[in-house]
Amino acid sequence: MTQVRINPQAFFPMPVALLGALVDGKVNFMTEAWICRANYEPPLIAVAVNKGHHTSQGILENREFSLCFPAQELLLKTDYCGLVSGKEVDKSQLFDVFYGDLRAAPLITDCQLNFACRLTHQVEYATNNLFIGEIVEVFALSDRMNGTRPDFEAMDLFLLTLPDNTYWGMGPAIGRAWMDGKAFAPVPE
Amino acid sequence: MTQVRINPQAFFPMPVALLGALVDGKVNFMTEAWICRANYEPPLIAVAVNKGHHTSQGILENREFSLCFPAQELLLKTDYCGLVSGKEVDKSQLFDVFYGDLRAAPLITDCQLNFACRLTHQVEYATNNLFIGEIVEVFALSDRMNGTRPDFEAMDLFLLTLPDNTYWGMGPAIGRAWMDGKAFAPVPE
Repeated sequence: MTQVRINPQAFFPMPVALLGALVDGKVNFMTEAWICRANYEPPLIAVAVNKGHHTSQGILENREFSLCFPAQELLLKTDYCGLVSGKEVDKSQLFDVFYGDLRAAPLITDCQLNFACRLTHQVEYATNNLFIGEIVEVFALSDRMNGTRPDFEAMDLFLLTLPDNTYWGMGPAIGRAWMDGKAFAPVPE
Repeated sequence: MTQVRINPQAFFPMPVALLGALVDGKVNFMTEAWICRANYEPPLIAVAVNKGHHTSQGILENREFSLCFPAQELLLKTDYCGLVSGKEVDKSQLFDVFYGDLRAAPLITDCQLNFACRLTHQVEYATNNLFIGEIVEVFALSDRMNGTRPDFEAMDLFLLTLPDNTYWGMGPAIGRAWMDGKAFAPVPE
């Protein structure tokens, strides 16, 4: 088996979320998978959004946004949010929405995990805005928790790969981080 | 079922990679899952690294880094890289390494997907550096491709969730992006 050079326009498995904002006062959601944590303490999150997207405008307007993680049962509706723009289609009634303290970060009652974020700054690139936000509040469905922690097995979240445009379920738990590597070699005290 | 407020130090499923750099001229890898695409064209990637990590120093030194995505068969070795610091343990011989054009971005022969990146800029937060790099070259194992595209089913990559410190396999393909949503509602031409 050999390593071959492929197109640098490359990707890896990404978590699927709905990115929410108010745009001209109206709730809007788009499908979003370019997400990562940017800082541990305070908890910051980074999200990259095409500059032309309606949601980009809303985030810059109100400096708040949400990331709502749907289960597989919401796959069709989630994908639909990536097919139509809030410029042309009113998506404000698609989901039952609630709010925490951030009044411009719409959260979704049927989503497993809901992050309400306050924009701290943004970096503008050629095609995308990279928004950095502080995670101010997180909500989860009460029966999808293991005590104080999200129960990711119960949450049934899903993933996206590009450029094959494929959604994937989560597989089984296969190991423990900061633990299983001790079986590879001794770890200094 | 109700939405309950949980700790805002919250996460979601994240792709597991080995982040590579040369530090003082020596190859080093750390386990990394805070990764996302930051811009479409040119292809930029964002990666958040604790400022104290040895790898942070190497990336700032050489302004190049790699992201190497292992299959599950490398789980123990991958986790080990997150247990020991290059400050104390020489990790330069753990993997068979190769290079593309970027001579300070060590790539792993046994990894499924290898990204070689040139640092374009960094943002310093309280605990982490957010490194933004251009994806200059990508390599993949020849028999894990579907034509010109990565075959993510064959690649057998894995994911991490926090704070439960759990690794997860990828589940089955469950849908098509920018397609399945058309079954939810008609999409304007």
